[in-house]
Amino acid sequence: MLILNKQQVLDRFAVERTTLLLKKGFIAFSQQQVQMPSVQHLLFTQANGDCCIKSGYLEGDESFVVKVSSGFYNNPSLGLSSSQGLMMAFSAKTGEPQALLMDEGWLTALRTALAGRIVAELCAPKHITAIGIVGTGLQARLQLVHLKTVINCREVWVWGRNPEALCDYQSFAELEGFRVHITQDASQLAENCQFIVTTTPSREPILRAKNIQPGTHITAVGADAAGKQELETQLVAKADKILVDSLVQCSAFGEISHAFQQQLLQATRISEIGEVLALNKPVRKNDRQITLADLTGLGIQDVQIVKSILLS
Amino acid sequence: MLILNKQQVLDRFAVERTTLLLKKGFIAFSQQQVQMPSVQHLLFTQANGDCCIKSGYLEGDESFVVKVSSGFYNNPSLGLSSSQGLMMAFSAKTGEPQALLMDEGWLTALRTALAGRIVAELCAPKHITAIGIVGTGLQARLQLVHLKTVINCREVWVWGRNPEALCDYQSFAELEGFRVHITQDASQLAENCQFIVTTTPSREPILRAKNIQPGTHITAVGADAAGKQELETQLVAKADKILVDSLVQCSAFGEISHAFQQQLLQATRISEIGEVLALNKPVRKNDRQITLADLTGLGIQDVQIVKSILLS
Repeated sequence: MLILNKQQVLDRFAVERTTLLLKKGFIAFSQQQVQMPSVQHLLFTQANGDCCIKSGYLEGDESFVVKVSSGFYNNPSLGLSSSQGLMMAFSAKTGEPQALLMDEGWLTALRTALAGRIVAELCAPKHITAIGIVGTGLQARLQLVHLKTVINCREVWVWGRNPEALCDYQSFAELEGFRVHITQDASQLAENCQFIVTTTPSREPILRAKNIQPGTHITAVGADAAGKQELETQLVAKADKILVDSLVQCSAFGEISHAFQQQLLQATRISEIGEVLALNKPVRKNDRQITLADLTGLGIQDVQIVKSILLS
Repeated sequence: MLILNKQQVLDRFAVERTTLLLKKGFIAFSQQQVQMPSVQHLLFTQANGDCCIKSGYLEGDESFVVKVSSGFYNNPSLGLSSSQGLMMAFSAKTGEPQALLMDEGWLTALRTALAGRIVAELCAPKHITAIGIVGTGLQARLQLVHLKTVINCREVWVWGRNPEALCDYQSFAELEGFRVHITQDASQLAENCQFIVTTTPSREPILRAKNIQPGTHITAVGADAAGKQELETQLVAKADKILVDSLVQCSAFGEISHAFQQQLLQATRISEIGEVLALNKPVRKNDRQITLADLTGLGIQDVQIVKSILLS
């Protein structure tokens, strides 16, 4: 079995190849060519942690993939990353383990950020005076890094609860070439930004419907398990167009689950990313529409990013 | 991260310690002290294989466990074991990977066989003139090996489809000290045995109600996913007492699922192994009752066997 440590995994990562494979993966998923069992969730309340286990198999592939990824939110105080995890590839012909990627959660973070980039290509409004990033962690950084390749705007607002973390993010984003505004008031961010990404494990809404400008796009990345929520339910209900990675997952435990379960959403407004990619049609009809993308993370993304690492 | 290969895992295996931990695990599971998400199943029809992914966490433990195990039934023709897989332990405090046990499916096979032993202690009739083993593979062997410690009888009937595999099993069982009868007629086995273990991945019934003697116990190990079935539905319906590892799993995709879904079973006849162990009461009321145990395999068994390996 091939065992790669984090550095070896990152050395093999190639952004364009991975993005292309991820797009193919979203399409295959929406065309029912992927076996992707329900996500397993474990909760560690005392340690302020959670873990999810995803697996997937794209019919015809040589391998299938199992991924264990967790977030332990007290880890930074121990000098550890809050994201942890690994991915494994197994032969789809014999079941033998083929590769163990000890990526410490990086591949999950990267494929999530690249899903954000794919969504930006599909949904971003033409005129963006500032990007808004809700959260200051790893995903908040990776989203900004990968948005740079598809959005020209170099002005960013960032929201966080912790002033120190905000300052750190500011330094990071300045090094990435952005003019940075930090705030602890999410309404201020919403009022200044037309492309917003939310990346926190929040269990209560951070962004409110009343603060969002017409024409804004929001990518909601944080809510990937029951109980998590970053957007006010009314804000989700207000969106003109909603993209989801998986209708099954997002309606069950994604950002849109609250509005969905309260029957505030018309099914016609919701499309899977894979459907939209296959049709190659614009999501946004005009510059006044509010668009929303709900990313819960799919096993097929893990399949595709592992494939991209092992192909190299 | 500690990485152990198959031999290193087996060197650390201690049967009595593991059995004790498994019993504690079954009890904890039935007392709702275990997080055990729904099993993930993947199916590889072309390769005649399947894979299941289990995870579990016993509240208060230092670690949680994820297990990937598969059966690829064409493997023997490639000189490979049909059982494949590995188990992993992760910190329940930080999410960091702690240990990778490259056991090639052995721990799954062992904890399943030991569940068979635990069931035998609970359900075996007093007088057994012969043990019946349905199937000739690894699990068929391990069951016999571990039954020896709790059942005195040294006469065994074994059923299989392949004459060569039957001969191989005969040699194995003779070395284990058994007088061995081989047969390709399952009714002959049923008519001669009072303690039967079924261990095949069959998708059609092998044992029929009409052939089973009063007072027989049957442990059904093979059916652990939708579509698998080793016992005629009427045979399951006829059982006086049914033990299950998990009522949720067994009623959904275990051996009893067919009879359960056809509403042929009274709930009062069904108990979880963990409930029975906690009560410490005999399952069998008399020597005429037919008892049945349905083992689908629990994540908590993986948790406990990994714990027993890592404790050593």
